[in-house]
Amino acid sequence: MNEMTITTFDWVPEAPRGYVRDIRLRWALEEAGFPYKIESTPFKDRGEEHFQHQPFGQVPWLTHGEISIFESGADLLYVAETSEALLPTDPKGRNEVIKWLFAGLNSVEMAVLPFTIFKFTEDEEQTPGRQALDGFLAARLGHVETYLQGRDWLTDAFSIADIIMADVLRLADRFDALADYSNCRAYVEQATSRPAFKKAYQDQLDHFAAAD
Amino acid sequence: MNEMTITTFDWVPEAPRGYVRDIRLRWALEEAGFPYKIESTPFKDRGEEHFQHQPFGQVPWLTHGEISIFESGADLLYVAETSEALLPTDPKGRNEVIKWLFAGLNSVEMAVLPFTIFKFTEDEEQTPGRQALDGFLAARLGHVETYLQGRDWLTDAFSIADIIMADVLRLADRFDALADYSNCRAYVEQATSRPAFKKAYQDQLDHFAAAD
Repeated sequence: MNEMTITTFDWVPEAPRGYVRDIRLRWALEEAGFPYKIESTPFKDRGEEHFQHQPFGQVPWLTHGEISIFESGADLLYVAETSEALLPTDPKGRNEVIKWLFAGLNSVEMAVLPFTIFKFTEDEEQTPGRQALDGFLAARLGHVETYLQGRDWLTDAFSIADIIMADVLRLADRFDALADYSNCRAYVEQATSRPAFKKAYQDQLDHFAAAD
Repeated sequence: MNEMTITTFDWVPEAPRGYVRDIRLRWALEEAGFPYKIESTPFKDRGEEHFQHQPFGQVPWLTHGEISIFESGADLLYVAETSEALLPTDPKGRNEVIKWLFAGLNSVEMAVLPFTIFKFTEDEEQTPGRQALDGFLAARLGHVETYLQGRDWLTDAFSIADIIMADVLRLADRFDALADYSNCRAYVEQATSRPAFKKAYQDQLDHFAAAD
């Protein structure tokens, strides 16, 4: 089968550079040691073909032969099942990774996202809903902090779950949300010091800079 | 192997009854036609064993022999891979369902959750962050609305992705967020009219009522 292709935007503004979700796929494919291609779709004009691949008008999506998959979690699961490098094959180990893959997205990113939107909109008003959402994030980070105590990675070895969790925590760390969570911060530092992350990050920056 | 066990809280307040996430697992197991057991963990005293199964102190989790899985998305994927009833086995069909499983959780529930928190806290203040979060939800619901046009289910047949998406949209519908999205509302009505959902819903209500 042909090599996998990651489709991302042709260009994005400065703010999201280094944080566009294609970094998760680049990172996984670098870790797996797979060759891959990068293709671009217009940021400013999202047409019918874009929505056929990604019904929410976002990026990235992954194509491999006749398979087209959006959602970074689904993409990483596909890569890991194809490569066997980032996901154990025994049922128990496999399920450990899959539950943490979902947890990074659904228990942690779900709490990080509103926080980042308040930061991007420079909204400092402490309304009841805002306080509840901040409390929700603090609780979730507190649980991750406890879980990471004494662990290098979420499961026995580095996996796709760590790619998601580290990238999600990186989004929180960008606005200093990890100041009170030293295990989380050390975990992000350890994950992002991996050569595969560094290459993915630089490649994303270069990709968008080339379009300026 | 033994039958699967869903662990949920022994009791919850009135507000979340009918919406506790164990309904997703009950629903899937009813659809699959599998026998299963329900066990309870204290709502008011979440001890070490709870956190060993669910590190965020939430419910449900699924146990099956030595396997213990939290996160409703991971649980449903496990059930579907075991049953073959709610997930096609061909690679393309399987990936279609898996991407929509992640989309329901990560593209839609992520947008619905802040909205429900503002509603639960009766927060009506239109701060910049709130407006951005409301716009985020409207955009996501709009894309689901477009996608559902002319479709019964997210993929060719009812699947675990529909269990997640219908349950997520039901949370939005509870606070009337689907008033302008007739396809979404019709989809929720069609999904929740299935006998498996009705039984799961009533069983959850009965479980918590029995503890009053």
